[in-house]
Amino acid sequence: MKPSGILETIIYANDLEQAAWFYHEVLGLEMPREPSELAAFFRINEHQVLLVFDPTVSDQPGRAAPSHGARGPGHIALRIEPEHYDAWKRRLSGFGVAIEQEIEWPNHTDPGRSIYLRDPTGNSVELITADIWRG
Amino acid sequence: MKPSGILETIIYANDLEQAAWFYHEVLGLEMPREPSELAAFFRINEHQVLLVFDPTVSDQPGRAAPSHGARGPGHIALRIEPEHYDAWKRRLSGFGVAIEQEIEWPNHTDPGRSIYLRDPTGNSVELITADIWRG
Repeated sequence: MKPSGILETIIYANDLEQAAWFYHEVLGLEMPREPSELAAFFRINEHQVLLVFDPTVSDQPGRAAPSHGARGPGHIALRIEPEHYDAWKRRLSGFGVAIEQEIEWPNHTDPGRSIYLRDPTGNSVELITADIWRG
Repeated sequence: MKPSGILETIIYANDLEQAAWFYHEVLGLEMPREPSELAAFFRINEHQVLLVFDPTVSDQPGRAAPSHGARGPGHIALRIEPEHYDAWKRRLSGFGVAIEQEIEWPNHTDPGRSIYLRDPTGNSVELITADIWRG
């Protein structure tokens, strides 16, 4: 008996409109509805959602669900197709989003490359072409 | 062109041994190797890993990869099977892990239930039987 998947991945941002711009417009994630005061919601695929919470709202006591709310730069890594790597760099450049670093992972079982950028809040977002944790 | 999945979901903990106990022993997640000073690594399924970073290490400048490290309680939601709901409650009780709250989601397209607990660092961990974000 063990959990079968991560349904909700959470990061935090103080400006959810900026988060919506970054994750929906720049990264192209599906955003089924406009952000609330509490959170922006992105459908990643059939099994995963990304929730971006405003920690000044989500950490208040007395909410319907338990409180939480981290501060400081978090991190997520999103899978991209290897053949789209250069197209992603062009797209980010077109939106004026700086690439912080690129890394090649040649020594892993599943070799690949990563593009690192920062969302408007400063979270470290990685676009990665391979599952470097396999094996 | 959009990312196809979240490969790495990250939360933070100052004591990675305690995190290993909680996520590997209590929740049963696969832990392919012992935690490093930097992070504990859990394989969730074929497409997802959970990384628990020590933010006092991961936020240092000059690492091989960009720095990050949030403080304060984060949140993740893990999928469990509806038929295991009561077995999970017994298992948590057996490990002395308190249930902070239970919620029913009857009004969603995919009705379900959630168990909320806290990991040793204070992150809010949800065990959920359904994809309440669908529809």
